[in-house]
Amino acid sequence: MNITVLGEARYPSPLSHFVSDKIRVLLNAVIDPDAPPSDDLLLEVAGPREMLYFDPKKTRAGIVTCGGLCPGLNNVIRSLVLQLHHVYGVREILGFVNGYQGLDPWRGAEPIPLTPEFVEDIHKGGGSALNTSRGPVDVSVAVDNLIRRKIDILFVVGGDGTQRGGAALYHEAKLRGHALAVVGIPKTIDNDVPFVSRTFGYLTAVEEATRILTCAHTEAHSVENGIVVVKIMGRHAGFIAAGATVASQDVNFTLVPEVPFVLDGEDGFLAALKRRIVKRGHAVILVAEGAGQHLMSGGEKQYDASGNLKSKDIGVFLRDRIHTYLKEQDIPFTLRYIDPSYLVRSVPAGAEDAILCDFFARNAVHAAMAGKTGLVIGQQHDIFTHVPIELLASRKKQLDLNSPEWQGVLSATGQEFAHFPA
Amino acid sequence: MNITVLGEARYPSPLSHFVSDKIRVLLNAVIDPDAPPSDDLLLEVAGPREMLYFDPKKTRAGIVTCGGLCPGLNNVIRSLVLQLHHVYGVREILGFVNGYQGLDPWRGAEPIPLTPEFVEDIHKGGGSALNTSRGPVDVSVAVDNLIRRKIDILFVVGGDGTQRGGAALYHEAKLRGHALAVVGIPKTIDNDVPFVSRTFGYLTAVEEATRILTCAHTEAHSVENGIVVVKIMGRHAGFIAAGATVASQDVNFTLVPEVPFVLDGEDGFLAALKRRIVKRGHAVILVAEGAGQHLMSGGEKQYDASGNLKSKDIGVFLRDRIHTYLKEQDIPFTLRYIDPSYLVRSVPAGAEDAILCDFFARNAVHAAMAGKTGLVIGQQHDIFTHVPIELLASRKKQLDLNSPEWQGVLSATGQEFAHFPA
Amino acid sequence: MNITVLGEARYPSPLSHFVSDKIRVLLNAVIDPDAPPSDDLLLEVAGPREMLYFDPKKTRAGIVTCGGLCPGLNNVIRSLVLQLHHVYGVREILGFVNGYQGLDPWRGAEPIPLTPEFVEDIHKGGGSALNTSRGPVDVSVAVDNLIRRKIDILFVVGGDGTQRGGAALYHEAKLRGHALAVVGIPKTIDNDVPFVSRTFGYLTAVEEATRILTCAHTEAHSVENGIVVVKIMGRHAGFIAAGATVASQDVNFTLVPEVPFVLDGEDGFLAALKRRIVKRGHAVILVAEGAGQHLMSGGEKQYDASGNLKSKDIGVFLRDRIHTYLKEQDIPFTLRYIDPSYLVRSVPAGAEDAILCDFFARNAVHAAMAGKTGLVIGQQHDIFTHVPIELLASRKKQLDLNSPEWQGVLSATGQEFAHFPA
Amino acid sequence: MNITVLGEARYPSPLSHFVSDKIRVLLNAVIDPDAPPSDDLLLEVAGPREMLYFDPKKTRAGIVTCGGLCPGLNNVIRSLVLQLHHVYGVREILGFVNGYQGLDPWRGAEPIPLTPEFVEDIHKGGGSALNTSRGPVDVSVAVDNLIRRKIDILFVVGGDGTQRGGAALYHEAKLRGHALAVVGIPKTIDNDVPFVSRTFGYLTAVEEATRILTCAHTEAHSVENGIVVVKIMGRHAGFIAAGATVASQDVNFTLVPEVPFVLDGEDGFLAALKRRIVKRGHAVILVAEGAGQHLMSGGEKQYDASGNLKSKDIGVFLRDRIHTYLKEQDIPFTLRYIDPSYLVRSVPAGAEDAILCDFFARNAVHAAMAGKTGLVIGQQHDIFTHVPIELLASRKKQLDLNSPEWQGVLSATGQEFAHFPA
Repeated sequence: MNITVLGEARYPSPLSHFVSDKIRVLLNAVIDPDAPPSDDLLLEVAGPREMLYFDPKKTRAGIVTCGGLCPGLNNVIRSLVLQLHHVYGVREILGFVNGYQGLDPWRGAEPIPLTPEFVEDIHKGGGSALNTSRGPVDVSVAVDNLIRRKIDILFVVGGDGTQRGGAALYHEAKLRGHALAVVGIPKTIDNDVPFVSRTFGYLTAVEEATRILTCAHTEAHSVENGIVVVKIMGRHAGFIAAGATVASQDVNFTLVPEVPFVLDGEDGFLAALKRRIVKRGHAVILVAEGAGQHLMSGGEKQYDASGNLKSKDIGVFLRDRIHTYLKEQDIPFTLRYIDPSYLVRSVPAGAEDAILCDFFARNAVHAAMAGKTGLVIGQQHDIFTHVPIELLASRKKQLDLNSPEWQGVLSATGQEFAHFPA
Repeated sequence: MNITVLGEARYPSPLSHFVSDKIRVLLNAVIDPDAPPSDDLLLEVAGPREMLYFDPKKTRAGIVTCGGLCPGLNNVIRSLVLQLHHVYGVREILGFVNGYQGLDPWRGAEPIPLTPEFVEDIHKGGGSALNTSRGPVDVSVAVDNLIRRKIDILFVVGGDGTQRGGAALYHEAKLRGHALAVVGIPKTIDNDVPFVSRTFGYLTAVEEATRILTCAHTEAHSVENGIVVVKIMGRHAGFIAAGATVASQDVNFTLVPEVPFVLDGEDGFLAALKRRIVKRGHAVILVAEGAGQHLMSGGEKQYDASGNLKSKDIGVFLRDRIHTYLKEQDIPFTLRYIDPSYLVRSVPAGAEDAILCDFFARNAVHAAMAGKTGLVIGQQHDIFTHVPIELLASRKKQLDLNSPEWQGVLSATGQEFAHFPA
Repeated sequence: MNITVLGEARYPSPLSHFVSDKIRVLLNAVIDPDAPPSDDLLLEVAGPREMLYFDPKKTRAGIVTCGGLCPGLNNVIRSLVLQLHHVYGVREILGFVNGYQGLDPWRGAEPIPLTPEFVEDIHKGGGSALNTSRGPVDVSVAVDNLIRRKIDILFVVGGDGTQRGGAALYHEAKLRGHALAVVGIPKTIDNDVPFVSRTFGYLTAVEEATRILTCAHTEAHSVENGIVVVKIMGRHAGFIAAGATVASQDVNFTLVPEVPFVLDGEDGFLAALKRRIVKRGHAVILVAEGAGQHLMSGGEKQYDASGNLKSKDIGVFLRDRIHTYLKEQDIPFTLRYIDPSYLVRSVPAGAEDAILCDFFARNAVHAAMAGKTGLVIGQQHDIFTHVPIELLASRKKQLDLNSPEWQGVLSATGQEFAHFPA
Repeated sequence: MNITVLGEARYPSPLSHFVSDKIRVLLNAVIDPDAPPSDDLLLEVAGPREMLYFDPKKTRAGIVTCGGLCPGLNNVIRSLVLQLHHVYGVREILGFVNGYQGLDPWRGAEPIPLTPEFVEDIHKGGGSALNTSRGPVDVSVAVDNLIRRKIDILFVVGGDGTQRGGAALYHEAKLRGHALAVVGIPKTIDNDVPFVSRTFGYLTAVEEATRILTCAHTEAHSVENGIVVVKIMGRHAGFIAAGATVASQDVNFTLVPEVPFVLDGEDGFLAALKRRIVKRGHAVILVAEGAGQHLMSGGEKQYDASGNLKSKDIGVFLRDRIHTYLKEQDIPFTLRYIDPSYLVRSVPAGAEDAILCDFFARNAVHAAMAGKTGLVIGQQHDIFTHVPIELLASRKKQLDLNSPEWQGVLSATGQEFAHFPA
């Protein structure tokens, strides 16, 4: 699939090795003679190009980080800056602060000039040195600002909504006759972006979640009929829950959005939990935040004092239902609830995520300097790719229930309760 | 202060060095010519005694762990067993399970025979290998059971309520003519036991809380006007909150039971928080669970669906009050609440707590073998002592507001808001 | 590529989903129109098969771990046992101890019966619960023993030499008319096995090496002209060195086997180090143990008191050459040498390696139960495969100098010194 | 014991609470009726004084860190700066770099102006933000420089040699008529400073050493007759070795300077090691660097190529002797040697050391502002004190072999071999 380019690349690259625009990577590397013909989408391979669209000496780049915290944001910022500065010789780099708000001069603070000195140690801490926020920006106002500040390249670090916002900026800039390269680095701690085999931050989240599950297991194991419910990130996909379950081997029930489960009845989750408690005397339950949403619909909606919808919190919902059910069943128990999300997403990137961030960032710079726009960096079969932003929205990435990831969950937990077809 | 002994010690100790019963340690090592005469309480020094009351070959010991989890419980169990077995040659050791419930044969499971093999690796995990529970036991039933099982020595690991329960067991056994040595090891993660300069688990809790405060700081620092409230253990004393504040240097407001603070008005906490947010753009608030109880009394009591009193949770209370106040003040903010208690108390002991547990346990065995009873092991000026259980209840241990601990908090936070005299 | 099978699979699998023998995975997922036709090797996809060769109720399996320590060995053992026991219902599993020595009844200790209870917590520690050793076993004696003990399946966890030994066992057993499934799980902390995109233990080693590099950076940075040389594993390939360099961003020179570098002269490493020291005042050097072997050949060989060849230790060699060179150049410096290998390889597996071990082990059981033999489990493009053992020896896996891994090293270090063509 | 003061304190303190100069702390809090009359040394209690000698607005302070790295150096620097700046209002603070070299304008770099911004995050990393070096400075040149730069207060962070150097500076300044307050913060990772119950960095070192011992245990335990020798800091005292032994419970032999042991013969260490290997199949040996020096004296001295005395390295010596001995005894074994010192001393301070550093630093500022000089901050019975530098040199601090520390080592290891009277 071809990537939009701003124009002809005319400046020689300062690098000594190149990747041709003609190289493609197969989306599907499996050959199954009994299966219908597979998807033949071919993605462009990322990497340095022989000719650049932008003259490094005259180029001005911007960086913005959006959405929730995710381990590795600072690594991405740092590698973008170092790659621009040291490898390509780009000297003017602005960091827009507080997410997309920072593109709007009426709402945000002044952007920060980014230098190798500024980013030197930022990767040693979690969070984002540019801050972050949720929500969109007025496209027209933002493009006015980008043009006024003479920004040629904008690196957008964020989820799919953020990336679509980035595409809108490019299109608006084009209408104004301003050649703006918008290159995205996909960010989702949930690992649910299509065309990216692993998003940065995901593995670090699994590592932290595993630590927390060890605590949960200790809590459950140290009292009679101890039950601990741990809620973890995963709005649309259960990758963190599945990974942490297989890594820790301490979870007895893993609930994910991909498997809408039955709560009540002999086949349901509550009865299965009761059987385990009676037999083994403790249980650890790991629930992704997007699991079991079907259970909380209908007339059950409740609002807290501030008017926020409460009933959609599956962790609290499950805790309360378990409590009520086991009381009814006259089983003594100790029930604890842990919601560690802020402690998982705010840590520095682990080594593997640090490496991944570096690769994503350096490839994003290669793409932008070559004048490519409206894309995000993807990864397929250990190869980094260029993915048109439009393509991102065309698919969803969820747990494949026949994959080792989910089969590993079933083996680790031994869980058995009814679920509806996904 | 003398310690009750079961009778004359007649068996020679297998150890090669001894501590005399006559050695005492001063409670107060400070001489202030301008102060009133100080407390002249003298505590017996712990350690091996030359003669034993119990014949190791015929002695049967029991161990029980009570109350909430605390890092180091398994280290204490392990060192008790190894000291009894290897150093004194005691071969029969029973672990009563599920706390004091385990002393009641009608409620508890069978006790576990404890051997060096059983305890070999238990200190590498958190929790208690003997499980734990809250609540008392029927003294008469328990003593029946202890006599029937021919228990000579009972090691009680728990808080002051647990220790008073242990004293009751000794008195009841004495009435029955059974010589029972009850030796306590004080357990409180809050570090609020008098006559013990530092309880085991406390330092590990501070270390974990410090890790969590780093996350809180990252969360607060990565958004505009980010506020994070962290609730930490500390029902009657703010030692963990103070220690974690000084260790992390990332906290801006530390609230403890010893300092009843004013919430409203220009001098109050909320106005101070607002001033900081306006000036610095973020804030981390660390609140001990026992802080601010005065704020939640009176007509404000609320109950949740299960009938539990809700309003006493200072963390949730503060979060809600901050939310309301800043909304009223029309200040934009992002507010997060973290309650990490289960993640703090369930980890294995750090190195220093592991050492402390070993010393407490080995001294407890020395005391018991010498026939001492109705005491807990204390620590004063780096010296381990024998503290009569009755003495424990006579004092409280709280933060001294002139101590380096609290002065360090004031310096680290720079906090300024009104408080009532403690 | 087809895999040898012991015979017709006749027993229905207890699992509910299957993978067909006909599915293949492409070795090369990249399409380059300008490149010569690529390798068209197709590997069999791993996973559960519909029919089994072995009747689980009558099957006896053995496990052996060989070679040096590697994070994850216990995870592999544990998942093999749990998969055999819980998923397939195999009840007789023997753990041969001390590596291949344990297959020889004249040299080794009795094998250990492996149960879910035995393996329950082994993954929480490093090392191997079955111990390990280097060196081969007398094939004839080992097969005698395996036949006598009625072993149907042998799982071999080890490097390529170990796996070739496993193939020899299968061939010898076949000659004796004993149907022995030998299924290997490739083990190399160096990550240098072909057909396996990442071996278990590698990521954990990178994480630990990164921690150590932080210490090295601190040491170098805290004195004037501080130089720290860190030697890390990597006999034939520099994957750990490259990964740790990119993850830590604290290394200034990374030396790997794939890049034979020049030591002396203006273009050489020593002069480049001198320039850095003069300019920046500190340097961290990370050297893979297999780097620079060409520098130590010839007349320089030296032996220690015990008769061991000393000069091949590139870490010590470099340290001494740096010392001599900078003395000659009259540059003051402080030089430290760190060899942390034992501290890197003995830790428990991190979360991602724990997951990988689980997948490798469960797929190995699937293959063995289906009667496949003479293979190892591989991984290509995130898909687990069956790789004939013979194929393993046909290729080598080393750093591709155009890959993001090595380009990331060059960017992170900025290193510039002459090297010979690889 | 009285502390030298520069003159009458005439400026009111900005603090609201004070400690009187008349308060003293007992060195010995133990009363033993059978012991000879104890030491009656009384130390001045540290803390804020009501009147200051220096006018904060006109005061200029300097800080220097000397000797080897130690966890917590940056915490000390940071708290000194924050206390001077925020609490006392001192605005001019210079950081002299590279240890005492930095006091000599002919040798060192320019000092760094220290501000709250500069020190904001330095405590999150190990090492010293001011660098460090070993060796003295020309006192006359240094005092010239201090006078020229109008330094009123010099904070000296270092060991006893460094502190004696600090006293020399004070005396020389006095001769020149310059009122220089020199206040020391004792720094020794070995914890062997008298009048200081625990030096900063020591507990962090024990924690790291314990981690390393877990690795050593895994290495020893995973092969047949595995032996691991770990060398750890402790030139004159075995506190780190003892602490790590008790904390880890994984060491089988602990060798410290205080216990000169016998190597050969049936009673010796080597025979005891052999017995353990034969009986248990593995051993972990922890040796403090200052242990066994008596074994390496006499004709055995050897020099390396650079002319350094080699034979004094007890770790290498032991490793080689064990190797030779077990070969002679015809016992198969695998022997590993680990020297992790650089990995132990370069990490950031743990929570407890972070707290300790803060207290030491803030008390040092109190003392200096009051015009006290020629002292170091000490700690006795959890109370911070003023210790005249001369007093430091008058005693040594070593392990008391009857203390819980050493008795805990004996219990943890069960070690039995001959040693000479200490």
